[in-house]
Amino acid sequence: MTTVLIVYATTYGNTKKLAEQVEAGVRSTGAAAVLKTADTVTSLDCTAADAIIIGSPVHMGSPDWRVKKFIDDITSGLWMKDALIGKVAGVFCTGSGFGGAGGGCELTMLGMLNNFAGLGMVIVPLPKNTPGYKHGGLHWGPYARSATPDMQNVPISDEAARVGFYHGANIARVAKELKGKQLLTNK
Amino acid sequence: MTTVLIVYATTYGNTKKLAEQVEAGVRSTGAAAVLKTADTVTSLDCTAADAIIIGSPVHMGSPDWRVKKFIDDITSGLWMKDALIGKVAGVFCTGSGFGGAGGGCELTMLGMLNNFAGLGMVIVPLPKNTPGYKHGGLHWGPYARSATPDMQNVPISDEAARVGFYHGANIARVAKELKGKQLLTNK
Amino acid sequence: MTTVLIVYATTYGNTKKLAEQVEAGVRSTGAAAVLKTADTVTSLDCTAADAIIIGSPVHMGSPDWRVKKFIDDITSGLWMKDALIGKVAGVFCTGSGFGGAGGGCELTMLGMLNNFAGLGMVIVPLPKNTPGYKHGGLHWGPYARSATPDMQNVPISDEAARVGFYHGANIARVAKELKGKQLLTNK
Amino acid sequence: MTTVLIVYATTYGNTKKLAEQVEAGVRSTGAAAVLKTADTVTSLDCTAADAIIIGSPVHMGSPDWRVKKFIDDITSGLWMKDALIGKVAGVFCTGSGFGGAGGGCELTMLGMLNNFAGLGMVIVPLPKNTPGYKHGGLHWGPYARSATPDMQNVPISDEAARVGFYHGANIARVAKELKGKQLLTNK
Repeated sequence: MTTVLIVYATTYGNTKKLAEQVEAGVRSTGAAAVLKTADTVTSLDCTAADAIIIGSPVHMGSPDWRVKKFIDDITSGLWMKDALIGKVAGVFCTGSGFGGAGGGCELTMLGMLNNFAGLGMVIVPLPKNTPGYKHGGLHWGPYARSATPDMQNVPISDEAARVGFYHGANIARVAKELKGKQLLTNK
Repeated sequence: MTTVLIVYATTYGNTKKLAEQVEAGVRSTGAAAVLKTADTVTSLDCTAADAIIIGSPVHMGSPDWRVKKFIDDITSGLWMKDALIGKVAGVFCTGSGFGGAGGGCELTMLGMLNNFAGLGMVIVPLPKNTPGYKHGGLHWGPYARSATPDMQNVPISDEAARVGFYHGANIARVAKELKGKQLLTNK
Repeated sequence: MTTVLIVYATTYGNTKKLAEQVEAGVRSTGAAAVLKTADTVTSLDCTAADAIIIGSPVHMGSPDWRVKKFIDDITSGLWMKDALIGKVAGVFCTGSGFGGAGGGCELTMLGMLNNFAGLGMVIVPLPKNTPGYKHGGLHWGPYARSATPDMQNVPISDEAARVGFYHGANIARVAKELKGKQLLTNK
Repeated sequence: MTTVLIVYATTYGNTKKLAEQVEAGVRSTGAAAVLKTADTVTSLDCTAADAIIIGSPVHMGSPDWRVKKFIDDITSGLWMKDALIGKVAGVFCTGSGFGGAGGGCELTMLGMLNNFAGLGMVIVPLPKNTPGYKHGGLHWGPYARSATPDMQNVPISDEAARVGFYHGANIARVAKELKGKQLLTNK
C-alpha cells in the first residue's frame, strides 16, 4: 500500500488544521497517511513512507525550529545513506502573511524543499487550477493565512485549509505511480 | 550630491507608477534621482550613482527579461571591475499575486538582490513599520499587486505605490551616509 | 513515445556541451529528445513534450536573459492555460563559480524551477549518488564549472558534463512513467 | 562604542573557528565584539548591538536548528516591537559542500538573511575582491568548506576562515557609520 508521511509543527493549531486536510486528501486516494508532529517522527517513519510532506508555520521567513530539528536529526542521516532517493515530496505552510505578499512563505517552503531535493526526492508543486488556490495557494504548496491584514491572529479559513486536501491527494497519486520503480537509477 | 539610479521595466505601467513613487521618495531627501528603463540604462549611469534600485514585474517567479538583460549586459562587466562595491541597493516589484501569497515575488526580488550582493552592494530592506506595508510590503522591498484575487488586471493601488516613496527615501538616506566612505575596504 | 524538450542558452559552448549530455541521457532510455536554444523554442515544443529541462549559464546569480525571455514570452501563456500541469521538469547550469561555493548557481536554478513549479510541473532533482556528483553536482541539478579557482575561463570538464547524462536519463524515466496519467487532477 | 554581536552554532568547531575570525575582524576596527552561541544569546544582547552577524553550519540546505531556535525564540519578539530596524547584519557558513557547488549554502545564508530583512536590518554582503574569496567566498558571506571533495571531514582551512576577518571588519565599519542615525525613518 502506498504510504504518505505528513510531518508538521504547530503552536496555535493552524498548521495542524492544514495538515489534517492534507491527510484527508491522501486518504481520499486510498493511500495510507501517517500524521506526526516533528518532535515524534522517526527515521523509520521516513524510510517506510513512499512520500513525505512537511508543513510548518512561517517564522521570520523560514521553517519552525522544531521542523528544522527533525531535518537535522533525522533526514541528515538518511541523506548519508541515500535512503530516500526517488521517493516523493511536498510542503505546506501557514503564517500571518503581514504585507499581503506571503510574509516569507516562499523561502520557508524552499528551506524545506532544499532538504527534499538534497535527499533526491521528486517534488510535487501546487497547480494553479487547484480549487481554492486564490484563498491559499503558492506554486510550491498550500499557504494559509493565520492573521488579518492588520496582524490580528485568526484561525486559517476552511477554504485555505481545503487546498491542502488536493495537495495531499496529488502527492499520494504521484507516490503510488512511482512506488518501487527506482527511476533515479544512475544508468 | 547623492544620486540614486532607479532602473525598471514596465508593460502596463504598474511598475512605472511604483518607480515614480520611489523616485519621489529619493527626491524628498534632497538626493538626485535618475529614472531609467532597463533597456536605456548605461554602465556610466551605474558608476555615477551612489545607490541603485531595480524594479520589475514578477513574471513566473523571476524578474522581467528586460531587467535580466540589463543585469547580464551592464552589471556583469561592472562586477569584473569591482566597480560598485560599497554602494547601496534595493528592489521593488509588482505582480498579479494570484494565490494571495505573493505569486513568486520573494524569489523575484532575490533574483535581483543576488546581483546586488554579487556586486558587493549594501542592501536596504523594507521595515515592517513602513506606512502602507500592509497594502504592499514584503521585507525585501515594496510589492504592489496588479490584479484582483480572481486574476482580473487592475492598476496597483495608490496605497501600495506609496510604499515605494518610503523605500526610496530610506535608500537615499543610507546612500548619503555611506557615500565615498569606502567602508568595504578589506582591511 | 516519451518526448523530452531541452532548452538552453550558450555563449562559449559550455552550456551546449552540458545540454548535449542531457540529450544523450534522455535518448539512452529510449525517449525522444528535442534540443533547442532558448530563442528558437516554441510554445508547441513545450506542449508536445512530456518533460522540459532548462539549462543556463549563471549570470550574476540568475539565468541568462535569453532563458528568461523564453520563460516570459512562451511559458507565461502556457501558465494562463494550465497547459503543462503534471508534466516533468528539471534544470542544469554552468558558471565560473568564483569562490568555490557555486557563485550563485543555487538561486539561478531556483529562478528556473520557480517557473516550473508555477506551471504545476513535477520536479526531478539530482540525487547525491549520481556518478560524477563530486565534479559537478548540486541537489537541484548538474552544475559544471567553466573557470579555474583564479577565474580563468576553461571548458567544463567531461566528468562534470557527464552528470548531465544521468540527469537527462532520470527525468526521461520519470516522464515516461507519468505520461498521460493526469495525476494532479484536483480530486 | 560600536558593538557587534556574533551568534553561531557549532558541532565540530568549524563554525566556531570562522566565528572567531569574524570576531577578530570586528575588533580590528576598534569596535566591541560579543561572541555567543545560539543557545545562550539573549534578547538584550540583540538590542544592545549595533550589528548582528549569524553563522551556521549548512545542514540539508538550511541553518542549524539551534540557530533557527534562536531566530524563533528571540528575534520574533524583536520583530513585533520593531526593535532592530536600521541596525546592520551579515551571515557566514561552513559545510561539507559536497558537489563543489556549495551544497546548499546559498539558501542557508538566505534563510538567515530573510530573518534580518524582516527585522529591517541593513545587509552587508561579501565583496568579490575580499582577500581569500576564492578559498571561501559566496557573495552573501564567507563560506568555508569542512570536507574534501570525497566527503571526508577536515577542519576548515585558515585561508577560508580568514575571509571571516574581512567580513567582520566590513560589517563593523558600516555599523559604526550608521549607529544611532535612524535612517529608515519612514519620512
